[in-house]
Amino acid sequence: MQIAKVRGTVVSTQKLQSLTGVKLLMVQFIDEAGQVLPRYEVVADSVGAGLDEWVLISRRAIAPQPENDLRPIDAMVVGIIDTVTVENRRLYSKKDEYR
Amino acid sequence: MQIAKVRGTVVSTQKLQSLTGVKLLMVQFIDEAGQVLPRYEVVADSVGAGLDEWVLISRRAIAPQPENDLRPIDAMVVGIIDTVTVENRRLYSKKDEYR
Amino acid sequence: MQIAKVRGTVVSTQKLQSLTGVKLLMVQFIDEAGQVLPRYEVVADSVGAGLDEWVLISRRAIAPQPENDLRPIDAMVVGIIDTVTVENRRLYSKKDEYR
Amino acid sequence: MQIAKVRGTVVSTQKLQSLTGVKLLMVQFIDEAGQVLPRYEVVADSVGAGLDEWVLISRRAIAPQPENDLRPIDAMVVGIIDTVTVENRRLYSKKDEYR
Amino acid sequence: MQIAKVRGTVVSTQKLQSLTGVKLLMVQFIDEAGQVLPRYEVVADSVGAGLDEWVLISRRAIAPQPENDLRPIDAMVVGIIDTVTVENRRLYSKKDEYR
Repeated sequence: MQIAKVRGTVVSTQKLQSLTGVKLLMVQFIDEAGQVLPRYEVVADSVGAGLDEWVLISRRAIAPQPENDLRPIDAMVVGIIDTVTVENRRLYSKKDEYR
Repeated sequence: MQIAKVRGTVVSTQKLQSLTGVKLLMVQFIDEAGQVLPRYEVVADSVGAGLDEWVLISRRAIAPQPENDLRPIDAMVVGIIDTVTVENRRLYSKKDEYR
Repeated sequence: MQIAKVRGTVVSTQKLQSLTGVKLLMVQFIDEAGQVLPRYEVVADSVGAGLDEWVLISRRAIAPQPENDLRPIDAMVVGIIDTVTVENRRLYSKKDEYR
Repeated sequence: MQIAKVRGTVVSTQKLQSLTGVKLLMVQFIDEAGQVLPRYEVVADSVGAGLDEWVLISRRAIAPQPENDLRPIDAMVVGIIDTVTVENRRLYSKKDEYR
Repeated sequence: MQIAKVRGTVVSTQKLQSLTGVKLLMVQFIDEAGQVLPRYEVVADSVGAGLDEWVLISRRAIAPQPENDLRPIDAMVVGIIDTVTVENRRLYSKKDEYR
């Protein structure tokens, strides 16, 4: 999985039916030093991530549908990150960001 | 998913039978600032996207076939984008482009 | 899918049994302006593509085998390209190349 | 598979239920000369890898779940590396690192 | 598939059980001109490739296991290359390398 920061939203009304009701976020990836990269992804969110939060993005998350079809979703928010610790140093803490 | 702009079409008559009837578009990807990148993809379109429109491209969209075979399609247009909003700023609005 | 140009062939006699009878082409990818990139791929061909032809390469094409095993093939020629049109300009036409 | 070095941990409490109980490590990839690259990945670990150890990372490891759902995990530690030998020269030996 | 050169071996004793008995090679990829790239991959080998041989690497080769689990293997040697011919010029011939 990659670490990303929630930057915005994407709205599409004319779309495949299997995307109905899927909330689409625009996230930008974070590098190993905690900086925002230009690389972005439009991801589905079912965790309820908010603007500027750091999230965990997975490309393996497949939400199976009733009719056994795959949702056409490349990547999803699978978790809201509390802390990232590298070599015993705190790189990110959600609590510090929002206090 | 990635955001891309419809740039043109690709025609192939001598092809795998499973590609029969699939409309192929040439799209170029959009970067996080809304600029067109040189990176392109030939994608299938079943949404009816038009030239210069911004679309959502998914690599997970698999159209299952009657004979349980997978269509040899890497990427598809899964939605026509209405708006992209980054940090509460409108990066793209289909209405503005076409008024 | 990506657009590529057929550049040559790869021969391997000591290989997995599931690759028996698969014709392997060496193709180089074409950029958005129609130039040949250094990036290549060894692909299977069941369409009958010839040297220097532009072809459509898919990474999703999976040829299922009798014993329900997947062929170990990353990418395939899924179509021979007739025309590529970008912004109403002809980028490539097979007829022009071979007249 | 790629070779990576364990650098830290990622904690997420608000996450998809299928991630419950999964230990998340932050690893950085190692280049062909044995140097740490800036490129990282958040991976699941079921092998018990420790800080600074070299590990083997696979993107194919899928832990199937009881309800036949896929865990939303892109990459996993599949082995702790003892030795890497290139052209008969020892590039890495776990024993040497920890003596 | 990509073309790579066998450079060495990776040994891991503490690993997922599904990797037991899998021989792991370190290969480096070859560019379109026949030069060795810095980019490497740790791959499984069931073909019996030797040091310095050119091999064909597939990311699609999945060895199914008795218990219907997938082996956590990203890439495999699927063939030992005899010849690579580009524009009717011989880029590589195994016979020439070893005479």
